[in-house]
Amino acid sequence: MRNRTRIILASASPRRRELLAQIGLDFEVRVSDVEEKVSATLPWQVVEELSVQKAEAVLAAVQDGEEDMLVIGADTVVALEGRILGKPHSPREAEEMLRELSGKTHEVYTGVTLLYRPGREVSRDGAGTSCGGQCPAGLRQDRSGRGAERHKTFHERTGVAFCPLTEEEIAFYVATGDCMDKAGAYGIQGLFARYVKGIEGDYNNVVGLPVGRLYQEAKEWII
Amino acid sequence: MRNRTRIILASASPRRRELLAQIGLDFEVRVSDVEEKVSATLPWQVVEELSVQKAEAVLAAVQDGEEDMLVIGADTVVALEGRILGKPHSPREAEEMLRELSGKTHEVYTGVTLLYRPGREVSRDGAGTSCGGQCPAGLRQDRSGRGAERHKTFHERTGVAFCPLTEEEIAFYVATGDCMDKAGAYGIQGLFARYVKGIEGDYNNVVGLPVGRLYQEAKEWII
Repeated sequence: MRNRTRIILASASPRRRELLAQIGLDFEVRVSDVEEKVSATLPWQVVEELSVQKAEAVLAAVQDGEEDMLVIGADTVVALEGRILGKPHSPREAEEMLRELSGKTHEVYTGVTLLYRPGREVSRDGAGTSCGGQCPAGLRQDRSGRGAERHKTFHERTGVAFCPLTEEEIAFYVATGDCMDKAGAYGIQGLFARYVKGIEGDYNNVVGLPVGRLYQEAKEWII
Repeated sequence: MRNRTRIILASASPRRRELLAQIGLDFEVRVSDVEEKVSATLPWQVVEELSVQKAEAVLAAVQDGEEDMLVIGADTVVALEGRILGKPHSPREAEEMLRELSGKTHEVYTGVTLLYRPGREVSRDGAGTSCGGQCPAGLRQDRSGRGAERHKTFHERTGVAFCPLTEEEIAFYVATGDCMDKAGAYGIQGLFARYVKGIEGDYNNVVGLPVGRLYQEAKEWII
């Protein structure tokens, strides 16, 4: 059950890399320097939109080959009562975010885009895309007679309940530096686990990649 | 915020060790060869009872010292519709368990017992135990004029929803061997994550130790 398809993770995140390796897939990492443009405002729309942009930029940069290829783009945000919290720019901003999240339940959204391109020689399916004419801009169809590219975009939402945090606990955690490169100023997979009451949804979605859903959506193409 | 209390984890599980280290506590591991006797039948009662036995056996074997000491015992079971699933004894039994869990939501229970003994010289609190006369057998009180031992026992319950598993997926996973030393025949923190839809509760409770609740319950004694 090794994957027959060449898988490319379009993300620089070491956490996403670990998660994809955890579920036993062989893959490589390619990162684009695409300028992220967000037109949406709702958290789930934002992460879906950005996941499409990341995956498309990487697919466009990869040479056609004989292999089947799957590009995975992903983006994650934290939202409190509908408002998006990004990565903190300073320890002070991290403290403010944690103060806001303390004792409450917030949502984590990860958007995922899967772009699948069958290899030049071994196309098993010449049917059109599965997106019913609603393919994101940039997706090319039936070029040069190959099997069409296909895509799926989805998001997963996980609720995360924090214990109440004391000022001392916030200062201690921020001093560890673990908060600085993470949306919402915390990493559930590290020391911060001591302050998490529970979750509802996919845990790995909070870490950065909903590998359960991703595997289920991708398996028709990769196994 | 390093712990001032000597912490002893009364468990041989490498996963529990990793979780306790993850939340930044200093601890040592001591394992007793206590014979586990279960009188209870409900899953949460069983894990609480076993966690008490494990913690007490280790505390009894540790010499009194000048330091404050906290012993942590824990036990985890998987339950499907109220019926406990233990660790599989064979690949065939693992397959059967996974077939039963496929496409359903089951519960994971971890019972935790915290036994706290203030050091001989530095007892800050001579009050009686907090268990109101219901201390598990073996807990000694106010011996030799020291501060009394205190304990807490609790459990956490997490719901885990599996995707439907094909026979091929079950055979593939069982062949990895990852199922053999785990209650319910799966490890959520490994490759099996690809088959998990979502959870409700503490993720680390499924791995084997609810470190969020544990930290909140223990912090008055360790920080």
